[in-house]
Amino acid sequence: MRTLIKDLKDGQEVVLKGWVKHVRVLKTVAFIKLEDMTGSVQVVVKDEALLREVKRVGKEWVLEVKGNVVGGEVRAREITVLNEVLEKLPVDPSNPVADLPTRLRYRFLDLRRKDVRHVFELKSVMVNAFRQFLLKKDFVEIHPPVIIGTASEGGAELFPLQYFEKQAFLAQSPQLYKQLAVIGGLERVFSTMPVFRAEKHNTTTHLNEITMLDVEVAFIEFDELMNMARDVLLFMINEAANYHGEGGVTTATTISFAEAKELLSSDPSQDFTREEEQALCKELGDVVVVHSFPAHLRAFYTFPRSDGTSLSFDIIYKGLEVTSGAQRIHLYNLLKQEIERRGLDIKTFEFYLEAFKFGAPPHGGFGMGLERVLMSFLNLHNIREATLYPRDRERLIP
Amino acid sequence: MRTLIKDLKDGQEVVLKGWVKHVRVLKTVAFIKLEDMTGSVQVVVKDEALLREVKRVGKEWVLEVKGNVVGGEVRAREITVLNEVLEKLPVDPSNPVADLPTRLRYRFLDLRRKDVRHVFELKSVMVNAFRQFLLKKDFVEIHPPVIIGTASEGGAELFPLQYFEKQAFLAQSPQLYKQLAVIGGLERVFSTMPVFRAEKHNTTTHLNEITMLDVEVAFIEFDELMNMARDVLLFMINEAANYHGEGGVTTATTISFAEAKELLSSDPSQDFTREEEQALCKELGDVVVVHSFPAHLRAFYTFPRSDGTSLSFDIIYKGLEVTSGAQRIHLYNLLKQEIERRGLDIKTFEFYLEAFKFGAPPHGGFGMGLERVLMSFLNLHNIREATLYPRDRERLIP
Repeated sequence: MRTLIKDLKDGQEVVLKGWVKHVRVLKTVAFIKLEDMTGSVQVVVKDEALLREVKRVGKEWVLEVKGNVVGGEVRAREITVLNEVLEKLPVDPSNPVADLPTRLRYRFLDLRRKDVRHVFELKSVMVNAFRQFLLKKDFVEIHPPVIIGTASEGGAELFPLQYFEKQAFLAQSPQLYKQLAVIGGLERVFSTMPVFRAEKHNTTTHLNEITMLDVEVAFIEFDELMNMARDVLLFMINEAANYHGEGGVTTATTISFAEAKELLSSDPSQDFTREEEQALCKELGDVVVVHSFPAHLRAFYTFPRSDGTSLSFDIIYKGLEVTSGAQRIHLYNLLKQEIERRGLDIKTFEFYLEAFKFGAPPHGGFGMGLERVLMSFLNLHNIREATLYPRDRERLIP
Repeated sequence: MRTLIKDLKDGQEVVLKGWVKHVRVLKTVAFIKLEDMTGSVQVVVKDEALLREVKRVGKEWVLEVKGNVVGGEVRAREITVLNEVLEKLPVDPSNPVADLPTRLRYRFLDLRRKDVRHVFELKSVMVNAFRQFLLKKDFVEIHPPVIIGTASEGGAELFPLQYFEKQAFLAQSPQLYKQLAVIGGLERVFSTMPVFRAEKHNTTTHLNEITMLDVEVAFIEFDELMNMARDVLLFMINEAANYHGEGGVTTATTISFAEAKELLSSDPSQDFTREEEQALCKELGDVVVVHSFPAHLRAFYTFPRSDGTSLSFDIIYKGLEVTSGAQRIHLYNLLKQEIERRGLDIKTFEFYLEAFKFGAPPHGGFGMGLERVLMSFLNLHNIREATLYPRDRERLIP
């Protein structure tokens, strides 16, 4: 039985398995720093035959060490090499000076750094906090299709795909499908799915494949929806903070789009710039909920108010928009009118629009970019750091 | 505040929101069967003005009903129509006679059947049971890319994709990426991702887009891995059985491929046919673990034994293969040799193979098809019933 390094207790006989982070061989003794997923420990080697074996061992070799724990160290009795390093390490995990492209090129070595693995442990904590929050409220997790037949959201760019004889696309969001699920009577649904955007620009906050956390709820009031989106985000942040040791957030500020624009002395007909989002958080706190955006700035399915605003909101976390949500139009005639008014092709929305003829409930929902939440939480400079194998304008391998 | 129908208590003032399943209007009284996500209740209408309003209400209309609970019924005081049905229902959820293609075409109405929603509630229960089982063992959820640069698994067919100037593909499994994560020191990882197979045949057990539940573990022994795959499946089945009210499974039979073939009096150089898988379960029980397949029947990364078998296993659940797993080759030279021996193009595996030069730990893992587990659990006849919006040879919309 293997012992995890975090579970070592003095006096114990143990079998460790892990990676060599450092070796120092002296005349009559050698010291190996061995690391597994749970921590690292110093292995002390005194046996002569073992010392000879240890001389050929280098950084990132994989060892099995049998021995006993004395004073927090492990005195080796037996060492088995489970795997070797065959070439010079292109990235040295114990001396991290590589630039981001090189780290991503050799992600399998970059991950041998505890702090890098920690990023992805937090990502796992966050996505599962999202689910737990919703499952407790009787939500059902759904699996909307990634391959879609029509460029259904209009606007942003889609990756085209050959689907046998037909033209298809990669979904840029599960928007229409989560609405269809709710219209079907699965009143509370969520999904945690990859989505795809064929945007050509390379920025530090966009990727072409991301993980979207989506929620859709029937019979919910706008305020209730906005609070749910805020609370699930705070829960994710605080669960991550528990794991991370710091970074919790207890409060959020809610403000209307008009008020926010006034605060910024900025043009209220335009959406926020990145700088304005940062200014808002500087002024109002780490988590800012902005609601009632002008209808013309939001997607066609957003429920409009008669004053030109809409039942919509964004959540900005440390200067980065992480969540976008809205009450949806559930009335067939209004929805059709909005599609036409915006000059969208009604044909591509037929299968979606049709559903609103047969008893669609009032509903609303939101979507949250997982990588962005993680990026803001850890103050990462580049969203690529929050993604194991990022897909961007240039990066398709590994 | 809305009251969910499952929470109704006699004497309560309530606000219900839901769908009309049945209306019967008599001279001085009307009865409406109203349903929400939690159940259904009879609404009694006696008020004359309300009776006039109720006369125009039909099946699947969306109502808000205010009233009080008396003897398990709700006496309506106020009824608001939240949405109407504008056209004849193409599928009547309360009289389900439609064939599967029609049901899938109108999934948003098909879902208005409680028993259909129940299928997807169980799917949610299963996928979250999978995650909970693993999270308790310190697994980390990862998000491998869907868009991949090389046809990395070889063999089965891939959907090609134009990724800006480059040729890309949709991943048919996160296999190589979950291995890279484990090689990187994230020792225990899982993912729950859509995968894509461009197989042209239409069967009742295959789809072109499915949800794969993937696991990969460093430093695990083959027996331990096989037991983990069995236990996570049993946990999923039993969690689903708790929700469903029946269908639990407590035992599994483990048998070698050679023994199974002997039992079937069948050719031991060929993989099981579907009929053989069914025969095995008939003979040995609902859950059968078959291990030690001939190496030539398994993927190139499977760890071979010197006797021609391999450290591999499948799990068959009610006659359907749901899980496939193996100890992986972690030694560079052996892996390279296997790729070459099988005539695969070494160029497409370069980024993957390279990782094995720098201290890959012994590891193994498995993948499980979520829709297949659900299909077997519920004895569904077609995997399309276990998928909200199936993608098959013909079906791309909705």
